[in-house]
Order: sequence, then C-alpha cells, then structure tokens
Amino acid sequence: MSKASIPQGTRDFSPEVMAKRKFILGHIERIYQSFGFMALETPAMENLSTLTGKYGNEGDQLIFKILNNGDYLKDIDVLNIDAKSLTPKIAEKGLRYDLTVPLARFVAMNRHTVQLPFKRYQIQPVWRADRPQKGRYREFWQCDADVLGTDSMLCESDFIQIYQMVFTALGIENYQIRINHRALLEAACEKANAVDHFKSITVAIDKMDKIAWEGVEKELQSLGLDNSQCNILAQFLIKRPFNLSTLETLNELLSSQTKATKGLSDLQQILSFCNNTSDRVILDGSLARGLDYYTGCIFEVIINDVAIGSVSGGGRYDELTSVFGLKEAISGIGISFGIDRLYDAMEALQLFSGKTPAFTDVLFCPMEDNALPWCIELANELRQQQIKTEVYPQSSKLKKQLDYANAKGIKAAVLIGSNEINTKTLSVKNLITGEQMTCQANDLISIISQMP
Amino acid sequence: MSKASIPQGTRDFSPEVMAKRKFILGHIERIYQSFGFMALETPAMENLSTLTGKYGNEGDQLIFKILNNGDYLKDIDVLNIDAKSLTPKIAEKGLRYDLTVPLARFVAMNRHTVQLPFKRYQIQPVWRADRPQKGRYREFWQCDADVLGTDSMLCESDFIQIYQMVFTALGIENYQIRINHRALLEAACEKANAVDHFKSITVAIDKMDKIAWEGVEKELQSLGLDNSQCNILAQFLIKRPFNLSTLETLNELLSSQTKATKGLSDLQQILSFCNNTSDRVILDGSLARGLDYYTGCIFEVIINDVAIGSVSGGGRYDELTSVFGLKEAISGIGISFGIDRLYDAMEALQLFSGKTPAFTDVLFCPMEDNALPWCIELANELRQQQIKTEVYPQSSKLKKQLDYANAKGIKAAVLIGSNEINTKTLSVKNLITGEQMTCQANDLISIISQMP
Repeated sequence: MSKASIPQGTRDFSPEVMAKRKFILGHIERIYQSFGFMALETPAMENLSTLTGKYGNEGDQLIFKILNNGDYLKDIDVLNIDAKSLTPKIAEKGLRYDLTVPLARFVAMNRHTVQLPFKRYQIQPVWRADRPQKGRYREFWQCDADVLGTDSMLCESDFIQIYQMVFTALGIENYQIRINHRALLEAACEKANAVDHFKSITVAIDKMDKIAWEGVEKELQSLGLDNSQCNILAQFLIKRPFNLSTLETLNELLSSQTKATKGLSDLQQILSFCNNTSDRVILDGSLARGLDYYTGCIFEVIINDVAIGSVSGGGRYDELTSVFGLKEAISGIGISFGIDRLYDAMEALQLFSGKTPAFTDVLFCPMEDNALPWCIELANELRQQQIKTEVYPQSSKLKKQLDYANAKGIKAAVLIGSNEINTKTLSVKNLITGEQMTCQANDLISIISQMP
Repeated sequence: MSKASIPQGTRDFSPEVMAKRKFILGHIERIYQSFGFMALETPAMENLSTLTGKYGNEGDQLIFKILNNGDYLKDIDVLNIDAKSLTPKIAEKGLRYDLTVPLARFVAMNRHTVQLPFKRYQIQPVWRADRPQKGRYREFWQCDADVLGTDSMLCESDFIQIYQMVFTALGIENYQIRINHRALLEAACEKANAVDHFKSITVAIDKMDKIAWEGVEKELQSLGLDNSQCNILAQFLIKRPFNLSTLETLNELLSSQTKATKGLSDLQQILSFCNNTSDRVILDGSLARGLDYYTGCIFEVIINDVAIGSVSGGGRYDELTSVFGLKEAISGIGISFGIDRLYDAMEALQLFSGKTPAFTDVLFCPMEDNALPWCIELANELRQQQIKTEVYPQSSKLKKQLDYANAKGIKAAVLIGSNEINTKTLSVKNLITGEQMTCQANDLISIISQMP
C-alpha cells in the first residue's frame, strides 16, 4: 500500500481552481481566436536533440529526461561513467521546456504545408527541473501566441491590442504594458561608447525595478563605465509614455546613432497603428529581457497592485527556425502569458468573485426512492434548456442532500416526495434565500430561469 | 544544427486537426458539465510509487520513467547492475498512464475536503511505451467521468444518457452501447460448473467479436470445458436488447444461481431509470473487459459502420481508493472516451464537414500601406461584434492576400486602397461566390453578418 503524494513542484488542480483557470484561459483563447490565431498542440515529449542547446547551459540542466524503455543499459560500459556522460546514452527524450522551440520544430517539419504568415496559439504545460519555491513550479502552463513570416509592425500593434483586451476581459485595471526595442538599447550603448559591454549592461539594467538606478549604476561602474557613460545611459533608461513626444525625445537623445533609426521607425509605425493607445503603454528604456533571442521590439506586462513579477512577455525574433535547418530566415514575434502568475494576481486582487459559473444549477432531491424516475425525467428536460442539473443519487435525509448542494454552490433544489408525486406538484427551494414554493412541472423551467 | 523530428508514437496536432478535436471535446465536456461533473487536472508526472503495481506487470513495463535530476548515479554501485534493478534507483517519477489512478490518489490525498458523491471529469493526455502502430500512440488523450461515493444505479443510468447525448451531438447515429454485469458473468460460470476457470473464461469470451462463438468455443474446450458446459455458457453469451423481456430471459436462465440476484436487480433498477432506452442499448453477455478492476456493471460502446474497436468503456469498481490507504471503501463508477478513436471514426464517416468554425471570418486586405490604420480600426469594430477578423500585415499583391484567405478558409475579404480611402467606401468580396460589392463603413457589420 503506497501513501498518496505527488512530485515536488507539481500540483493537482481541484474543481474550484479549474473553474478559475478556465475563466482566464477561456478569455485569452477567445481573444487570440478573434485575431485569427489558430490552435496548435505538440507532444509533451520531444527528442532531446530538439531541446538541448536551445536554452543555454543552465536550461539544459533543467530539462526533465525520460529513460529509454527496455534494457537501456545493454551495450553500455557503465564502468567509470558519471551521470553526465551516461544520460545521453540512456535517455533520448525529454519533456517540453517551453512552447517556442516546439513551434519552430513544427514549422521546420511542415514548411511545405504551413501558410505564411502563420498565426498560432498554444496553451500547454511545460516542465522545468527548477528548485520549487513559492510561485515557481516544475509543471506550469504557458499560453503563447506567435506570428511567423512577416516583419510588419501590425503584429506588434495587434499584440498591444490583445493585451488590452485580455486585461479588460479579466477585470484587471491597473497594469502596465512595457515596450522597448533592441536597436534603441544598442544605440544607447553605442552613444555611451560601451558597445563592448552590451550584454553585461543589459543584464544590469534589466534589474532596474529591483535595485533602482543606484544599484544599476553601481553594477555599471563595476563594469568600468565612468560617470559620463553612466549619465548617457541614465537618460535613456527612463519609463516614458508611449507617444509621439516620447519618440521625439528619444530621437534627440539618439539622433547621432545610426542604430537608432530602425528602432525609432518601428516604434513610430506601431504608434500609427494603435491610434488610441492608452497611458498603460509605456516605453521603458530599461526593459531588456533575454536579448540573445530577441532582435526587435520586446514586451513585458506587469500588474501594479501585486508584487508578482511580469505576467507576460514577448518580442520579435528572426532566427528561430534556422536552428532546425530551414534556409529562409522567417521573422516572427510572439507573446506568452504566465497563467499561474495571472491566477495568483487575480486571487490577490479578489477578481474571481462571481465570475465563474456554478458547477450545477439545480439539484433534484428525491425524498423517497420511487421519486427517482420522475426526478430523472425532469432533470433531462432542464438539461435540454442548457440548465446544469443533477439528481441526488438516493433518497438520503434532506439535510444531507442540501449539505451536498451547499458544498457545491447549487442555488436551487427541487424536492420530490410522495406528497409531490400524489399531487403532481413540485417543491422548489431557493438555497440562497431559503424561500420555498410549490409549482406545476410545466412551470419549472420558467421558475428556474427567473431565479437570480 | 538538428534535423527536426518528433518521438515515435507522438503527434503534433495541426490547427485543422485541433479544430476537429475541439469540436469533439467541447461537446463531451459540455454534456459532462450538464450532469454536474466538475473538471479536475492532475500533474503529468506522478511518483512511481503511485503508478507501479496498479496496471499489472505488463503495464508497469509501459510506464515512461523520468530520470532523477542532478548527479543521479552518486552512491550507486553500477557494477554488475542491470537496467531492471537500476531503474528504481535513478528514476523516482513516471508519466501518467491513465486518469483513474491519479483520481484515486487525489481523493485519498484530499479525503477531508472532497464532498461525496464526487463527480469529476478529466480530459488529459496519458503516456504508454507501447509499440506504436496504426491507431495506437504513445501519447493519447483520455476523457473520463467518474462518480465516487455512491452505489446508486442512477449513475449507470446517467452514463447511458450521457452516451446517447454525446453521440447525438457528434452526429454519430449507428452506435451500440453494450452493457453487462460482473455478477451475471459469475453466475453463468457457476451454472456451467466452471467457476475455477472464471478468469480464463472471461478472457476467451471477450474475444467473441473477433473470433465468433466457434473460436470462443475452441478456447473453452482447451480449458477443459465439455460440450454441456459450453452450451450453458453459449445461452448466456448473446447480445439481447436491454429491456424487461431480456431480464426475464436471463432470470429464467440463471434463476438457480444466487450470484445472479444482485446483477439482475441492478439491471432492473437501471431500466426503471432509463424510461426511454433506445434499441441502441444492448445487454451483451459476452462483454467482460478488465474484470480484475470492475465489480458491477460494465460498459462498452462501439460504432457500427467503422472497424475501429470500442470508442468508450467503463464500469463500476469498489476498491479504487483503498490502495492509497483510505479505510472506507468508496464505491465508484466511471467511463472513458478514447478521443483518438472517436476522431478517426468521425473522419471515416465524414462527420466533421461544416461543423468546425472558421479560423477567421473576415480578412482586411490593405491595397497600399497607408490603408493599414483604417483596416485596423474597422477590424477592431468587427471583433467587438464577435466576428473573428484579421488584417493582412502588409499591402502585398491582392492575389497573394486572397491566396492566404483561401488557404485559411476565410469567407469574406474587405479591400481598402486609395480609391476606398478617398471615397470613404469599402469593397467587400464574398470569397465563396466571388461576388464583390461596395458599401459604407457603417453598413459593414450588417453586410458581414448577413453573409452565409
């Protein structure tokens, strides 16, 4: 007999949690679809050759590897072998680490049938052997949308629109969509005469929210940057409203840098497409993200009232499919919502209240066993009207039946005993007010429909 | 550079396939919910101690095991060790093999919070290291519903109802719901004086559909059963309509067997609950399924017009949670749809045609780049009316844009060039008929809505 437990860093999603997750995912999926994004799903297992080398050394360590089946040690000399050299010999598959590499792999495998621009969304779990801690799981859900095969800034503009629609639908009001452009970051480093330190500088400035400018400055100084270099960077590393006047300011700051041209014209184009950008969109010079990967605009979204980190991020990339041998360079852009963080944020802001549908609308309570057939008949009629209906499976004591109804949040009970059977009437109980009334079977649907 | 490929026995689900899968899953989920079933999701990874010993020796071999992270060989003497003894030392987790054991594990872990009867559904992939072949995959989806904590025959009746509702919703007409009861099988063996061979007999009769009575008879004879024993079993192993007259026949056949009593009274009760059972419900004396597991009614559903095996099965069990240390015996019953087989059957019967929604309803085609802002503005208005809308991301040649629309099955295109901008009119093209008309922006939504 085994004691029941689940692996560290994994979770069961109970019905109550699932209802809230479905609320979030349903809105995101509907909004993705409203822009013509199409669903894709890929296998949980990928060949390790697909996964390794894409996430850096540290990432490779965090991939869950699956033991080959059968006699996997056959023909392997285990003498003097360590885990690191043994692993590739006994494990050929691993669990998906993100949804982006599988997308690239899918497009590379199906290049002849995939119509460009290819707009796909993908909502699936990913697995990382990270040390579990509060808010960090070994199995967690990503919710990605990507457009492959066009470098039009319409995509950037659409994603800004999508962000706004999603947060409106979820009832989240106080959020910030941060945008930056890799070319502007490069131009700023160029102007500060610090191109050699580009990568270290982006790592430092990405911490702005955590350690403030004073902390970033110290890191820049430790890289060998002098005061004047730091001051040049400081002018750029500011959060400004994403509007024409901000673009003018940046144009003045970076006018002498050729690298800035592409970034500024991209941003100007996005602005011309988002004719009613709200003040929730911010041009954040300190936003860097994983720059190895991104080549153009980058996004990050935070919710202001909760200390939960970013709930979404994304950006434009140019080389994704080339790692799988595609000769043409396919430009792409994508965003990803972290559902677990969105969930935690909405819980903290108490935004789920009243938004998830009841598990069951009506419970039929048989007061004696021979009431069951009539209960079943009426329940089927309600179901045909899209009313979620259960029959309590036996004529237990009414209190027990109503306890069940209350635990499940059911708002109406229909009581049927010998009296009801004899008089061909029904007793309908509103479980919120406690009110009870008698009605004819024919009137049941309209009475239930009128209950709040 | 790695060549793109996916593991044997796994699949990508392209947008076209996903649309059809969502059609199936959406109906099943809606119908489960209409009976008050609640969603549950469990982790892909379970501790191996949870999984092993639940699926028999052969099943244990088919569990995908996950390599422990870090230096998993530390403190292990690999000298003279074989794969079988090494595995438990280097792998503590495995991938979910079905959805039933995780359910039992969940209930055992949460017994204090789970309200009985507990009605849950679960739609998730499972993994088995089976030899891949046509229709058999290493990653496939199950779609389960179970009721735990009641032995009422209402559950059996509800599941028969659910089957009928699901097949009606999917447009599948020619199906058969087969039902049998373990107690009747036992009574038949008892009457044939062959109780000692019970397990082997059920294995033999379960093949009735494949090898017919002649084949089954041969297997029974090889077990040592004589002609009169075979004849007694043969009377029982017949498919009969599930109605009162069939129950009378069985009552006569098995009247002297005490074991039959419970089975017959259960079936009679189910019949009293399903007052309008169709002739699609069959009492099939040869239906046995995995009897180690089931203790009461068993179900199997087949689609008559396709040779695809059963698309769903299930039954009542009594001991599920006891393996995880729960002292009380919780009676349960569940069914499971095999989504992959349902999908294949519906493809074969051409039942998807016209049933999946378009990826995108309307494509805006900018004929020059400065038409993009107006396209974007109008597209957002359509989206607010629940019309799925895309803007082609650049002013490519009209043919290219319309090729994209056709490949994606888009039925309406709105063309905007300098002429349209100057006259403030729109050109709307019906991509099915080829018809094109001019309209005012204000009339666009009503024109689109009227298109078939």
